[in-house]
Amino acid sequence: MRIDVISAVPDLLQGPLDHSIVQRAKEKRLVEIFIHDLRDYTEDKHKKIDDYSYGGDAGMVLTPQPVFSCIEHLTSQRTYDEIIFTAPDGEQFNQVEANGLSLKKSIIILCGHYKGVDQRVRDALITKEYAIGDFVLSGGELPAMAIVDAVVRLLPGVIGDAESALSDSFQDGLLEAPVYTRPANFKGMAVPDVLTSGNHQKIETWKTEQSLKKTKERRKDLYEKFKKDH
Amino acid sequence: MRIDVISAVPDLLQGPLDHSIVQRAKEKRLVEIFIHDLRDYTEDKHKKIDDYSYGGDAGMVLTPQPVFSCIEHLTSQRTYDEIIFTAPDGEQFNQVEANGLSLKKSIIILCGHYKGVDQRVRDALITKEYAIGDFVLSGGELPAMAIVDAVVRLLPGVIGDAESALSDSFQDGLLEAPVYTRPANFKGMAVPDVLTSGNHQKIETWKTEQSLKKTKERRKDLYEKFKKDH
Repeated sequence: MRIDVISAVPDLLQGPLDHSIVQRAKEKRLVEIFIHDLRDYTEDKHKKIDDYSYGGDAGMVLTPQPVFSCIEHLTSQRTYDEIIFTAPDGEQFNQVEANGLSLKKSIIILCGHYKGVDQRVRDALITKEYAIGDFVLSGGELPAMAIVDAVVRLLPGVIGDAESALSDSFQDGLLEAPVYTRPANFKGMAVPDVLTSGNHQKIETWKTEQSLKKTKERRKDLYEKFKKDH
Repeated sequence: MRIDVISAVPDLLQGPLDHSIVQRAKEKRLVEIFIHDLRDYTEDKHKKIDDYSYGGDAGMVLTPQPVFSCIEHLTSQRTYDEIIFTAPDGEQFNQVEANGLSLKKSIIILCGHYKGVDQRVRDALITKEYAIGDFVLSGGELPAMAIVDAVVRLLPGVIGDAESALSDSFQDGLLEAPVYTRPANFKGMAVPDVLTSGNHQKIETWKTEQSLKKTKERRKDLYEKFKKDH
């Protein structure tokens, strides 16, 4: 898989994309990630990439020219399956979307910045707009990295048993049951007996009960969807 | 404000916390951020901080000892308003939660990792558990950085007019209207006439209509809540 990330603040993208699972996937050549600095594509003599918004709102907006130049440069070299924009007013990114993106060959992610990007970019170039949650961040770089991480860990061969994705929250529509590890007794707090019983059927029943209970308490929406589907 | 972030992979936290708005807030001494490496607190002679989970699931779980040692070390030095854990099965973090956290004096954020942390840590130490969305990441570092960014940009004095938070998506319960900047005509695509009309009342009406339309199309949940509240 190939991922091109376009940003006005590429330094923000260091760290998360150079360590841990994403780095491991790059080393195994399961993913190639290219970072593009929007400032390299501006034709403005002062290297400006933003301007005031029409209509008098406070806040700077990314101008269309550098974004068009960068994306047109990339799409002239290969076909992209999706051109994604990260913005708080996008669709909610979720595990189903992550599963879908993990099957693509190449995607572009344009990171939102300041008050956003000129609407003509969104209308003419963008194929998917994602928000990661109902909160506002100072830029779209963290959402872009979250999307990359959520997608890359699903690529075959990236994840080992240590992080096994199969029992993850959301993969079956429920939150995960509580987990416990050694020691069996820590500061007087014991692991639930069932987990040390060796009875696999009882353990599975307990986990399912705990998953349902936690989902019902914390995420009524997911719980009701699960009940409807099962 | 003081924020202590505890992580098993502190290198992941570089980048986003050292640039842009968070960095500016640190320079203005509006926030202090301290990163703690969980491995510095383990009493295991091999520096191990995780172990297999009871009950036979694939995946490693953070052991209680290093987390207890680190958090007890911090809370022995000062009072914390919240001790937060980032995990996909937490409550949904949103703008209301960000607004609330921005009023706190000091918080700890423990980043989830691998299959999670021993439940006894969550039961005994954690006061809030947040997920940033319905998707699974390889660790809780990106959610922790998203929480830090969303909160820090709300601290008085951090944000300039350039990023003005007042017209952000979610602050009034609606998604933001489309934004446009210069040039008025780009590759044959024109800015909507109303925005260059100079008629402020018409512009405000257009923005409200566009906000309502976008919210209705993309986020029926927010739209219905807004209609109920207004």
